[in-house]
Amino acid sequence: MEQFITLEETNRGMEETRILIIDVDLRRQKFFKESIFYENTYQVEVVPSVKEGLEYALSNKPDLILFGATENSVQDLNFLNLLQKGGCSSPVILLIEINSQIEIVDAFRKGIKDFITFPADREFVLQKVLAIIAQNKENERREYLDRQLIRVEAIQITMTTLSHYLNNYLTSLDGNFILLSENHQPEEMDPVCREVLQKSKIDLQNIKTVIRVLVNTKSVSFTQYDDSMPMIDIRSALSKELNKEVYL
Amino acid sequence: MEQFITLEETNRGMEETRILIIDVDLRRQKFFKESIFYENTYQVEVVPSVKEGLEYALSNKPDLILFGATENSVQDLNFLNLLQKGGCSSPVILLIEINSQIEIVDAFRKGIKDFITFPADREFVLQKVLAIIAQNKENERREYLDRQLIRVEAIQITMTTLSHYLNNYLTSLDGNFILLSENHQPEEMDPVCREVLQKSKIDLQNIKTVIRVLVNTKSVSFTQYDDSMPMIDIRSALSKELNKEVYL
Repeated sequence: MEQFITLEETNRGMEETRILIIDVDLRRQKFFKESIFYENTYQVEVVPSVKEGLEYALSNKPDLILFGATENSVQDLNFLNLLQKGGCSSPVILLIEINSQIEIVDAFRKGIKDFITFPADREFVLQKVLAIIAQNKENERREYLDRQLIRVEAIQITMTTLSHYLNNYLTSLDGNFILLSENHQPEEMDPVCREVLQKSKIDLQNIKTVIRVLVNTKSVSFTQYDDSMPMIDIRSALSKELNKEVYL
Repeated sequence: MEQFITLEETNRGMEETRILIIDVDLRRQKFFKESIFYENTYQVEVVPSVKEGLEYALSNKPDLILFGATENSVQDLNFLNLLQKGGCSSPVILLIEINSQIEIVDAFRKGIKDFITFPADREFVLQKVLAIIAQNKENERREYLDRQLIRVEAIQITMTTLSHYLNNYLTSLDGNFILLSENHQPEEMDPVCREVLQKSKIDLQNIKTVIRVLVNTKSVSFTQYDDSMPMIDIRSALSKELNKEVYL
């Protein structure tokens, strides 16, 4: 039995939410881990520096980044630019103290999504982070659908191209087989030759079936055998079509 | 001669920049049209209402949206949410008067990219809008490359799938032709039959060539014949391969 692995892009959706906290303040870390993201649907990563935060964010694309302000946070906020250049669009919430000297307008200009002033009410924080996470998931879902659309279009265009270029050859091959069998009456054709001709006709029919199934493939689900290249999963559609022909 | 039309996604890039101004203030309209975006590389659209602005933005994805504040602008800024839901990520600059009652932090939270307070210095405005337009073009370029990558991957996966499923049939067909010609010595095979067999071998060879060319296609350039479906342009690569075989 072949081992099929589904490579279909997983839509992390509801099942897991990744939170990155870049902060050295232990009380805030504790607050978020114990009062906000305590359920096990949250995967919370806490790092002490922008450098580590950037590394984690670029490879994990978290659903939310919480960035604790430090004395030189305005400079640190330049990492938002690096995030964007690296193709990471995770929303960033800036965490500040009441008497902080952080220029909020500057922080917004650099790309923060929102800010929270501490100490803060648990309910207020919860509502704010949940709303931003939900909006981000909606954006991700939209991007996922866009990518799927691009894939389906590319596959259909590939198959149209292929059919276009193969069609003449297949029609001609088909015609040749008809001529070949007409030139040999069954009684005068030797058995090996007759069997070979019959097999060739079936092979040709199968080639046409594979092309027809691929052209009609509308949903893009990828599978792969062991370590080989990923492929479009047409196994069940193909076997259905091939069985249909047996009974024709 | 077939008429080829290149459907390759155009990267508007440097040649044209679309600016949408949603504003009722005539002095500001004049300022932007005559002092900032006067070169003909800018295509400036001015509309008086959020409703019209939204329609234009969703279908034209401008490089920059300038939104003139009115008395109920904070409510009006909810159109930023609709823009995003519609998949339009054009940056929005809010234009306000010095004594305006607009809450800037609220506006940032709703999604503006920046704001400009009027009256404003021409040089200051120019630097700000050019920087934001440049950043947006960079993002668009990145998204364009991402989409191209998805396309190339989808095409390669399609062709891997096709080769996988066709390979057995093609090999078997090939073997059948060899058997068929071995069973008939040239002198005893009738001329029609010999010619047909020869043509079938060429057809089979050509099918294999088309598949090989498509599998090796790395750049995605689309063409189409008249009103038909778009296709991957493999014409020159294919003709090169087919000519090579003639001289083998």
